[in-house]
Amino acid sequence: MPDATNDIQALIDLMARLPGLGPRSARRAVLYLIKKRAAVMRPLAQALMAVADGARECLVCGNIGTEDVCGICRSDKRATGEICVVEDVADLWAMERAGVFRGRYHVLGGTLSALDAVGPEELRIPRLEARVAEEGVTEVILALGATVDGQTTSHYIADRLSGFEGLRLTTLAQGVPVGGELDFLDDGTIGAALRARLSL
Amino acid sequence: MPDATNDIQALIDLMARLPGLGPRSARRAVLYLIKKRAAVMRPLAQALMAVADGARECLVCGNIGTEDVCGICRSDKRATGEICVVEDVADLWAMERAGVFRGRYHVLGGTLSALDAVGPEELRIPRLEARVAEEGVTEVILALGATVDGQTTSHYIADRLSGFEGLRLTTLAQGVPVGGELDFLDDGTIGAALRARLSL
Repeated sequence: MPDATNDIQALIDLMARLPGLGPRSARRAVLYLIKKRAAVMRPLAQALMAVADGARECLVCGNIGTEDVCGICRSDKRATGEICVVEDVADLWAMERAGVFRGRYHVLGGTLSALDAVGPEELRIPRLEARVAEEGVTEVILALGATVDGQTTSHYIADRLSGFEGLRLTTLAQGVPVGGELDFLDDGTIGAALRARLSL
Repeated sequence: MPDATNDIQALIDLMARLPGLGPRSARRAVLYLIKKRAAVMRPLAQALMAVADGARECLVCGNIGTEDVCGICRSDKRATGEICVVEDVADLWAMERAGVFRGRYHVLGGTLSALDAVGPEELRIPRLEARVAEEGVTEVILALGATVDGQTTSHYIADRLSGFEGLRLTTLAQGVPVGGELDFLDDGTIGAALRARLSL
């Protein structure tokens, strides 16, 4: 692109690094931004700076916010004695959007992975144990992905927490997603849904 | 998303306005940016500001760059007497990437459209006529999209330029794209390719 001068090319290259954008969509996004300079481009630059300066991980649960301890960990209403363990902040946000969980969270920041050399220390698992000991936790809900790594991590955490007497360890139910059609589901999901069938 | 505090939510909303990104991919992009704060997020904010301040349309052809007259219009090497007329800056960049055209461009900024009330004045068509009169142009290549609006615009421009004696008016060839398989081509393309068949 000989005529997209250096600044514009640098911007396209940076945009192309975002997940979900390739070189082509990055170019399209940059042209859109140049057209919407006042309405989108400058506000976006300012918002990026503000978040780059302000965003930090909650020291308790690992959620991302603009304070040392996030709103969920500060709220007394959410001290229900339940901790929901998730892989990533995106999963925490998904749970919050669903609006069905009223307790607190613990963000691991990934899953155990022998291949990627991710061990318990990288994952805030010791911090989870400390919270269970300190916060009067009665239930830990393991809401990790239904992948091999996710399940390995669930088992490992269940093992580490098995010493806490009276602590309930649960995991999310597996089955047919709402709106899901059997025809489009994989065999594993159908099998799990059948095994966990409920009486009407 | 009750706990993504205001700054972060504002950033997600702005990102979601980019073409190609929805709310879900905007959230993913923002989490990625927060993880790559020094390597991507701050440089991106700075690049956005630099382009917002510096980008402007070339006064001659409508290309986007950082100077009043773009590099292509300033280069004597590109004064070949050929002007390639394109709809958008993205099309100009695509032509430049292909590296097959050595003349200059004219960016219309869209196509004529009765539905959207886009007339010749909105499209730099008078400016194109002025350039043909002033720049010693020998050929105008109409490289507009093979859509109804694109073809209408091509015909309109051809009509307006028909008064210039000795001016050659051409359009891009239609046919089978390189690497294209007949099985996947629409009837219109196959028909055009057959009508324009070449002797071997």
